[in-house]
Amino acid sequence: MTVVGIEGVLSSGLKRVQAEIDSVFDAFLPVPNDTRARLVEAMRYATIGGGKRVRPLLVVSTAELYGVDRTAALRAGAAVEAIHAYSLIHDDLPCMDDDDLRHGKPTLHKTFDEATAVLAGDALHALAFEILADTETSSDPFVRSELIATLGTASGMNGMAGGQIMDMVADEEGVEYDLHSITRLQQLKTGALLAASVEMGAILGKVPPEGRAHLRAYSRDIGLAFQIADDLLDVTGDQEKAGKALRKDDEQGKQTFVTLMGVDKAREQARVLVDQAVGHLANHGAEADLLRELARFIVERDR
Amino acid sequence: MTVVGIEGVLSSGLKRVQAEIDSVFDAFLPVPNDTRARLVEAMRYATIGGGKRVRPLLVVSTAELYGVDRTAALRAGAAVEAIHAYSLIHDDLPCMDDDDLRHGKPTLHKTFDEATAVLAGDALHALAFEILADTETSSDPFVRSELIATLGTASGMNGMAGGQIMDMVADEEGVEYDLHSITRLQQLKTGALLAASVEMGAILGKVPPEGRAHLRAYSRDIGLAFQIADDLLDVTGDQEKAGKALRKDDEQGKQTFVTLMGVDKAREQARVLVDQAVGHLANHGAEADLLRELARFIVERDR
Repeated sequence: MTVVGIEGVLSSGLKRVQAEIDSVFDAFLPVPNDTRARLVEAMRYATIGGGKRVRPLLVVSTAELYGVDRTAALRAGAAVEAIHAYSLIHDDLPCMDDDDLRHGKPTLHKTFDEATAVLAGDALHALAFEILADTETSSDPFVRSELIATLGTASGMNGMAGGQIMDMVADEEGVEYDLHSITRLQQLKTGALLAASVEMGAILGKVPPEGRAHLRAYSRDIGLAFQIADDLLDVTGDQEKAGKALRKDDEQGKQTFVTLMGVDKAREQARVLVDQAVGHLANHGAEADLLRELARFIVERDR
Repeated sequence: MTVVGIEGVLSSGLKRVQAEIDSVFDAFLPVPNDTRARLVEAMRYATIGGGKRVRPLLVVSTAELYGVDRTAALRAGAAVEAIHAYSLIHDDLPCMDDDDLRHGKPTLHKTFDEATAVLAGDALHALAFEILADTETSSDPFVRSELIATLGTASGMNGMAGGQIMDMVADEEGVEYDLHSITRLQQLKTGALLAASVEMGAILGKVPPEGRAHLRAYSRDIGLAFQIADDLLDVTGDQEKAGKALRKDDEQGKQTFVTLMGVDKAREQARVLVDQAVGHLANHGAEADLLRELARFIVERDR
């Protein structure tokens, strides 16, 4: 990827979506004038002003290919981001990964408390579906229902939660996964939500399932590339820039793409996947440039 | 309520729904042949063979008023029960209520571990929306979307999670609620999901919102009666029968309907609410008997 690319279309695309997603959450999360204020403050802490917003940008950029109204795409993007944020809150809990730092600031249970963190995660999980079921997100009930089915699957036992337990069981029971199993684990843990983001953009665009095959291929490739990049970041990254604890995989003796393949081969594999991903967009013109740049950003990022 | 009533229509109604809801969960939760097995075993532990199934019976009995296909109503009932089960798992966590006993058996984090309990709750939360978004629950996307909007609101910050944080803040910060605030808190914490159950039955029956007013009045009354009965149970109940820890409100110096009104007045109030609830069903014939008996059961139950 050229520096021009990142500084140009992608950088402005990310900045724009970051500000827009902040606004959507701000609108959905007015602080109530009662004792629920603590919960909503916690939900705002976890969703406003943090995160790269890769998933919302995937939703919006895919939706844009099909001329979808931007407000609708941003709402769907916020729903995906709410799921992402809830999963980070719960993953950071002491009984899970016990992390102190997220997006460069203390994790939610450090700033508030554990009980509030559990509840804020739960409430963001529900918020995602509330947003998608809202007629203002789409006036077409079929679209709403498809968005919800897609996000529900990506979040549950056959998606993120399933990948997370596979990861946990490996840590606790010393299960040794091979590359095939690690790939499967990561497809669930990370890939499912990235793929859902692209899928939701296509659903908003009313692209029939048979017209989504190239987008699914794209998101499968960037999903794997994203996780390889994450594993590389854990080994070679700068903790300050990453805004979260690094070197954790090695400390925990965890199997990752990097431990299984080595740094060089992992980096090479990530690049191959990104080229493949970009290849799947060959039938789109310049309107898919953001998706192309995003694929490259995913492996080049430093956080 | 007469013993004949409970032994008759309600008792058989509850037993039937208990068996049917167990079957629905059994079908939705096949144990996978990989390391996700622990997660799914935990989800099964929390959903199969336990609980009174009051909420599914509310869905099914309301749906029955409008001749809804029983399979659809049971799926919607299972979705509500999945939300109920997830909330109990998270409420029982050490950082929340720290409970050891639920439905007469060890709480999920005692049998498995805390991390699995967080994840199993999350996965059941997602499962609820997966079930409702499934075309087999309703072939009508508008119905699916309305079911999801209703359950999402009942689960989130303006429902259960909102009520839960109000409860927590009171405990931790010694906030003294008056009867008005306690009523509001309980309407969110307990009432919202009971009301959603009735509402979802009516949605399945394609009853337009203006035709649901009497059902909303019914569920508002039984929701409050349910919580008053719960508070009474905590004070006067038999822990063995209840299958969970009792006398907790008093130990924690918690404000409840009983501490604010006294045992006798609370019991009287619950009965008045049940009579009111039954009154709202006056335009229905014998087909609403189950809803009438259920209202009475809610205040007479010993668990």
